[in-house]
Amino acid sequence: MGAVEVSSLIAPGKRVLALSGGVGGAKLALGLSKLLSPDQLTIACNTGDDFDHLGLRICPDLDTVMYTLSGRNNTELGWGLAGESWRVLETLGQLGGETWFRLGDMDIATHLARSEWLRQGETLSTATRRLCAALGVAHPLLPMSDDPVSTLVHTDQGVLSFQHYFVREQCRPAVRGFEFRGIDNARPQPELMALLDSADLAAVLICPSNPFVSVDPILKVPGVRAALRATRAPVIAVSPIVGGIAIKGPTAKMMAELDMPSSALAVAGHYGDLLDGFIIDETDAAQARDITGSGVAVRVAQTVMKTLDDRIMLAAEALRFAAAV
Amino acid sequence: MGAVEVSSLIAPGKRVLALSGGVGGAKLALGLSKLLSPDQLTIACNTGDDFDHLGLRICPDLDTVMYTLSGRNNTELGWGLAGESWRVLETLGQLGGETWFRLGDMDIATHLARSEWLRQGETLSTATRRLCAALGVAHPLLPMSDDPVSTLVHTDQGVLSFQHYFVREQCRPAVRGFEFRGIDNARPQPELMALLDSADLAAVLICPSNPFVSVDPILKVPGVRAALRATRAPVIAVSPIVGGIAIKGPTAKMMAELDMPSSALAVAGHYGDLLDGFIIDETDAAQARDITGSGVAVRVAQTVMKTLDDRIMLAAEALRFAAAV
Repeated sequence: MGAVEVSSLIAPGKRVLALSGGVGGAKLALGLSKLLSPDQLTIACNTGDDFDHLGLRICPDLDTVMYTLSGRNNTELGWGLAGESWRVLETLGQLGGETWFRLGDMDIATHLARSEWLRQGETLSTATRRLCAALGVAHPLLPMSDDPVSTLVHTDQGVLSFQHYFVREQCRPAVRGFEFRGIDNARPQPELMALLDSADLAAVLICPSNPFVSVDPILKVPGVRAALRATRAPVIAVSPIVGGIAIKGPTAKMMAELDMPSSALAVAGHYGDLLDGFIIDETDAAQARDITGSGVAVRVAQTVMKTLDDRIMLAAEALRFAAAV
Repeated sequence: MGAVEVSSLIAPGKRVLALSGGVGGAKLALGLSKLLSPDQLTIACNTGDDFDHLGLRICPDLDTVMYTLSGRNNTELGWGLAGESWRVLETLGQLGGETWFRLGDMDIATHLARSEWLRQGETLSTATRRLCAALGVAHPLLPMSDDPVSTLVHTDQGVLSFQHYFVREQCRPAVRGFEFRGIDNARPQPELMALLDSADLAAVLICPSNPFVSVDPILKVPGVRAALRATRAPVIAVSPIVGGIAIKGPTAKMMAELDMPSSALAVAGHYGDLLDGFIIDETDAAQARDITGSGVAVRVAQTVMKTLDDRIMLAAEALRFAAAV
């Protein structure tokens, strides 16, 4: 990526905050991590998907970002660790235990370590820092909060915890709305707030993650939205919807069920006046004028990230856009 | 084993209760299980070694007996499951987690399943029954109690939980005494008590397990000792000490540290008037007269169980002895 001149992307001493969910967010976060040093890039992650399962505290979005930044993510599966094995889960199934949530052996070690540290009184931030250090992830990765928040999905089949909706039911129930249990009492992660309040903040990038269940929980942690409004740094989102569909996950299906058009424009509308800029895919260039009309600057880019180069190019584009907004 | 005529070992409708710790007890229990049907043999197991580790409820003695009876025990290691793998623990070590207690991947599945069932409100008896059913263990295997009991070892280096003493410290600290935390409030397992009270009970066999940390916890569950005294069935123990040493484990070392001679005679003395009969090894035949002098019948046998035939022969010998006492 010699074509990207990092010094042109961010001024000396400045820092970037990325807000991320799981897979889609992790792709952009990886691209950013290849351009920005650990001093320049902090990633804050949704923890609304976190849940207790088989006695393990599982943090799917944090882990996806962590595994991706460590280079150990499983690119074939699209989740989990490369070279994973399944001995525990296979045996658990033979014993009559629950196997709907696919836990690999190495992944289980992550959850065992984190759960133990949390039981010992460590914060999720500290546990995440220890895991990142062990996995060689140098960029700061922060949970949105050290307090537990649980995303509940209200559906035509009742209220489901997020992982039951997402994994066990494979997003089949029709969505009626969302609830982030515990969020009113959740304190935002202190380093996240300090960065949002910092004069060194050059940009906030909302990764192309699910707006409803990946980004909204972060935005709804008390204090975060106000800090995003207050910061002088531009807030830029990348549309997770391309050509009316989501690259991965149920975003488009959810939008349809919530009686929203599944379009980049509708995502921009969902984020509303929080945004200073919005990056949409070339496919959706025709929507640029409508979005601009709502007072949000638009950049049209190649947002579908198939290769590492795609990730880095989009990251560079987002940083350039932030500098220009 | 065509030489063993089962009908000569136990009368129709009669039942045998074996009290077992881990490895040594499991060997005799396996031998008994080859001679007696699930209707004829019940095994009650020490749970004082049970502990919570990495959020998992681990029951080493129950598992050793269960794995042994299922034919899946690891004969090379002498503990755990055959064909075990270590992916979780290896990864946990890389992440900075605790690895002193060697948990194999398949073994972890046992603990995950049991821990989950216990969290859901099932008793340890029910969880054990489910695991046994999945593993094809047909003989009833009972925890001594469904209430948690924790063996603490008082040593010259302070008070250690049993697994910290046994596994982490490898029995190096000198023993001063034992404490079974929670035992005063532990209720004996109901089926165990029903069997002890049953007129069908033909014999109680105390397996060659550690008298102090494997058998004593069972005997000290309120009601068990009284029921053992009250039953008309003979109570027969097999000495875990052969030629002054323990076949496996720290029994002899403990006896020395407790200022007891490490001898079969001293084990008989430890059990005291609970015993109707005591089986000692041929090596220790010279002690027979002193034991008999204390009012306990003695049978000299080949008690070192190297092969499956050894286990079955000793089991048959114990049953014949019980019938004769």
